[in-house]
Amino acid sequence: MTPAETIEVPARSGKAVKLRAGWSVKLINTLGSQVVDTWAFNANDLAEHMSMEHTRVMLGRLNPRKGDQLFSSRRRPLLKMTEDTSPGVHDTLRAACDPVRYKLLGHENHASCAENLSAALLALGLRAPHSPCPLNMFENCPVGEGGKLVVVPPPVKAGNYVVLTAEVDTVVVFSACPMDIFPTNGPDCKPKPVAYQVLQS
Amino acid sequence: MTPAETIEVPARSGKAVKLRAGWSVKLINTLGSQVVDTWAFNANDLAEHMSMEHTRVMLGRLNPRKGDQLFSSRRRPLLKMTEDTSPGVHDTLRAACDPVRYKLLGHENHASCAENLSAALLALGLRAPHSPCPLNMFENCPVGEGGKLVVVPPPVKAGNYVVLTAEVDTVVVFSACPMDIFPTNGPDCKPKPVAYQVLQS
Repeated sequence: MTPAETIEVPARSGKAVKLRAGWSVKLINTLGSQVVDTWAFNANDLAEHMSMEHTRVMLGRLNPRKGDQLFSSRRRPLLKMTEDTSPGVHDTLRAACDPVRYKLLGHENHASCAENLSAALLALGLRAPHSPCPLNMFENCPVGEGGKLVVVPPPVKAGNYVVLTAEVDTVVVFSACPMDIFPTNGPDCKPKPVAYQVLQS
Repeated sequence: MTPAETIEVPARSGKAVKLRAGWSVKLINTLGSQVVDTWAFNANDLAEHMSMEHTRVMLGRLNPRKGDQLFSSRRRPLLKMTEDTSPGVHDTLRAACDPVRYKLLGHENHASCAENLSAALLALGLRAPHSPCPLNMFENCPVGEGGKLVVVPPPVKAGNYVVLTAEVDTVVVFSACPMDIFPTNGPDCKPKPVAYQVLQS
C-alpha cells in the first residue's frame, strides 16, 4: 500500500475530503491544542448531514468516544470514530464561529469556521443546503454548575490524532478553528495548522 | 383587551402560530408532564430558525431560563422566555422524534414531532428548508456521569406555563410529543394535549 499523503489544513482555514465507504481519514493535531470543527455529509445527497442532536440521542451520551458511530440527520451512521489518541475531549454543543459572532466580539473581517465550511465545499464544486452544527473535535467545553458552558484550553498534545472511518460514501470537512479571542485553541489564543491523511481500505 | 382564545394542541399533534414582533404566546401544560417540541422561524425567511447550538453559545449555558433570549441561526434574538411557572427544566440536546426513530424502536406508522412540524407549517402554507433541532420545552434529560443522557419524567404540574415573546415577526411551532415508549411525557408513558394563547401587545 502506498504511504498516505499528509495534507496540511493551514491555520484558520478549511479543507473538504471525499471518502468512499470503508475509507478512513486520520486527523492529526500537528502542534497540539487546536480545535477542528468537523462536518460530514452523505456524498450522494448533501441534505443528509452528520447531526449532533441525532448522534446524542442514538449514543445516549453528550459526546462521542472511540468506537462510536456518528449519525446523520436521518439517523444513519455516516462515520465511525475508530481511533482516538487524544484524551477524548470533543464538543457537540457549540455552533461554528461565523462573521456575526466575531462582529459581536468587536472583530470585523475575521476568518470563521462557517465560512471555511462553505469555501472548502465550494473547492470541490459542492454546496450544503445549510450549515449544520459541527462536531468540534478536541474542543473542551465542560458542562458546569447549572449548565454553565465555558470553553477552556484543550488537553491535546502535538501529534494526537483521531481516525474517522466512512460507513457510506461521505464528504468530510475540517476547519482549523480561527478563534483567537478566547483560549479555545490553547492558552496562547493562537490558531494553528492541523493535517490529515486519507487511508484507503 | 379581548380575553385571549385558548387553542388546544391535541395529544400527538402540532400547531403553528404566527406572532408579530412584541406579541407573546402562552404555552400551557394542561395536564402536566407533557413535553412540547418547539421551533421558531423568522416569519419573513424560514431559512433563519431558532438554533439550539447558537442559543447555547450566546447564553453560555446548556438550557434557557426565564428572562433569556432564544437566538437564531444568524445569532439574532427571535424569542424571549418572559415567563415560566414550571420548574424550568427544558432540553436543547435532543433531535425531534421522527419515523426512523420509531421504526428503530419497532414501531411503524407512529406519530412524530418531525412530521408534526411539517404538517403544522403546511397548514399555514409554509415549508421550512430543513428540520432544526427543537427546544424541547419541559423535557427532562439531565446530563449524567460521563455525559450520559437518559430522559426521565418531567417535573411539570398541570397548568404550568411558559410565555414566549416575539422579538421579530416569528412563526412558532409546537408539537405535543407523541413518545409513548419511554417516560418522556410522564411515568404513564401517555401523550397528553397542551394548549396555547396568543397575547397581542
